[in-house]
Amino acid sequence: MLILASRSPRRREILTCAGIPHLVRAAEVDETIRDGESAAVYVKRVARAKAEAVEGDAGDLVLGADTVVVVGSEILGKPADQADARRMLRSLAGREHIVMTGICLRSAKGVVEHAESTTVRFLPLSAEEIDTYVASGEPMDKAGAYAIQGLASKFIDRIEGCYFNVVGLPVSKLYSLLRRPQSTEPRASASGPLTPET
Amino acid sequence: MLILASRSPRRREILTCAGIPHLVRAAEVDETIRDGESAAVYVKRVARAKAEAVEGDAGDLVLGADTVVVVGSEILGKPADQADARRMLRSLAGREHIVMTGICLRSAKGVVEHAESTTVRFLPLSAEEIDTYVASGEPMDKAGAYAIQGLASKFIDRIEGCYFNVVGLPVSKLYSLLRRPQSTEPRASASGPLTPET
Repeated sequence: MLILASRSPRRREILTCAGIPHLVRAAEVDETIRDGESAAVYVKRVARAKAEAVEGDAGDLVLGADTVVVVGSEILGKPADQADARRMLRSLAGREHIVMTGICLRSAKGVVEHAESTTVRFLPLSAEEIDTYVASGEPMDKAGAYAIQGLASKFIDRIEGCYFNVVGLPVSKLYSLLRRPQSTEPRASASGPLTPET
Repeated sequence: MLILASRSPRRREILTCAGIPHLVRAAEVDETIRDGESAAVYVKRVARAKAEAVEGDAGDLVLGADTVVVVGSEILGKPADQADARRMLRSLAGREHIVMTGICLRSAKGVVEHAESTTVRFLPLSAEEIDTYVASGEPMDKAGAYAIQGLASKFIDRIEGCYFNVVGLPVSKLYSLLRRPQSTEPRASASGPLTPET
């Protein structure tokens, strides 16, 4: 069985919509970004910490995931408060940024890590549009202070890459890993190690 | 008020999620593709026919939309039956195609038409994966025989362009048209003609 080691209701919904059976078992991990850590290293480290914080049986696959927004040289997690959300949205408006999700699939025999990037382009936004959006409350628990699947859908005219990666889980990448012969069968992950990927 | 001239529950949901107030008032139109008609001409013609088939008051904006899939030189609408759905999915698997949505915004003073294109790439699919997907029933009422927001999410590793255009409505393009001074106020569309776009 696939065990989703994440509290995110969006990740659960992506798996459910895609018809990928799973259980949810989330644990607390430290999500502090280390000095000098790149976005790819950070999201894979946190995804792995989540996958390792959750118990699985011999035939289980445990999935950890973590998503950040990268704009210029800055890594944006969830906003601290409304002023922080406004600052993040001002930095995204009228330009492109990267959304990066790290995933870690852990079985009894090995670990696969991957960092998936999607480019997202925002329309220019007025101060009033940003204020109205922040007042909706939607930005507060989202990396980069927006939800592409929510009210911010109308602000985003173009993406390049996996859409579901922006929501929080690169589901086609996950599916590609799961449908490999050694990992599609519930217990088959014990028959051979998974090949590490980046 | 914006009036959505479409029966599609997906288009309604896109507008609702984006927080764009609207009413739904759909009418029947002929969706037959004419000989030699390009995808862009076709979707704009059908979008306009939908917008013109619905009554609006002086201050209303009526929105028509139509979506097709273009793979090579073929235009794919909704599949006729399960065999047709399988044929369409075989033609999409392992390659890129274009999803094109025509929109038409009609007010008392003018009409704006636009055709939005998004490139979508499918993973290679086995005959068994296609059969399982068709058996789910999801492909039957969808242009190109798939729903990117549904079970087919896991088959699509990359898009270029607007995601919501693939679901059925390029919401950021619509929002850009609506937030122009002459069309954001409920009755202001009567104060000046909309500028035609393509």
